[in-house]
Amino acid sequence: MVVKQLLLFGASALLCSVVSTGQFASAEPQGRVVRIAELEIDPAQLESYKAALKEEIETSIRVEPGVLTLYAVSIKDQPARIRIFETYADEVAYKAHLETPHFKKYKTTTQAMVKSLRLIETEPIILGTKSR
Amino acid sequence: MVVKQLLLFGASALLCSVVSTGQFASAEPQGRVVRIAELEIDPAQLESYKAALKEEIETSIRVEPGVLTLYAVSIKDQPARIRIFETYADEVAYKAHLETPHFKKYKTTTQAMVKSLRLIETEPIILGTKSR
Repeated sequence: MVVKQLLLFGASALLCSVVSTGQFASAEPQGRVVRIAELEIDPAQLESYKAALKEEIETSIRVEPGVLTLYAVSIKDQPARIRIFETYADEVAYKAHLETPHFKKYKTTTQAMVKSLRLIETEPIILGTKSR
Repeated sequence: MVVKQLLLFGASALLCSVVSTGQFASAEPQGRVVRIAELEIDPAQLESYKAALKEEIETSIRVEPGVLTLYAVSIKDQPARIRIFETYADEVAYKAHLETPHFKKYKTTTQAMVKSLRLIETEPIILGTKSR
């Protein structure tokens, strides 16, 4: 019986380890949608903008299965110049994201804070990551 | 005995699920180094460049624990204009990466293929991802 238990434990541990290994490989794009947003924010409203952005990103990552990354950074020494590196599972996930209440709320809230917005569509070459 | 086995299976499955849940949260930056590279490649050498880039990225993700993402994309309809979104665990991991044989090989191999290179240092705001 101990042997059986060990086998069972081993089998589920193996399953777990296979899943983890899968997450630690670099992945080919496979239909991913990757978009880069370049924004310039009104410096006087920067903190409010960042709060709204953080809330929108946290919600999207938590509730939308097809939103894979929303990496937001500012350019060093130019805190009002922000770039967001967005990865969606596919076109359907991307379009669904634009229709969510949290995304619409973010757009409305930040409308008067954003001085300029450039959206850059891309073709993935290789999306190397530890995690998927 | 069946109950014991189920408990044991349940315990290891739970462990697995906790690990997975951890990987499905959006994360605060915590000392991460994020860099954006903007490159323009000689169109005549684009395929060779992309092959060298893919090899470098695959190796870095596989062998360097501190290299978290190397997302390489080209701008839509401008295949020779490439951007790489690079995330390192910390400054030490970033500096170590620059000294690896695979990175040095990539730099040497691609030197004559790269028409321009702009490296943009950034400050992470929020690195939202399903995976860490």
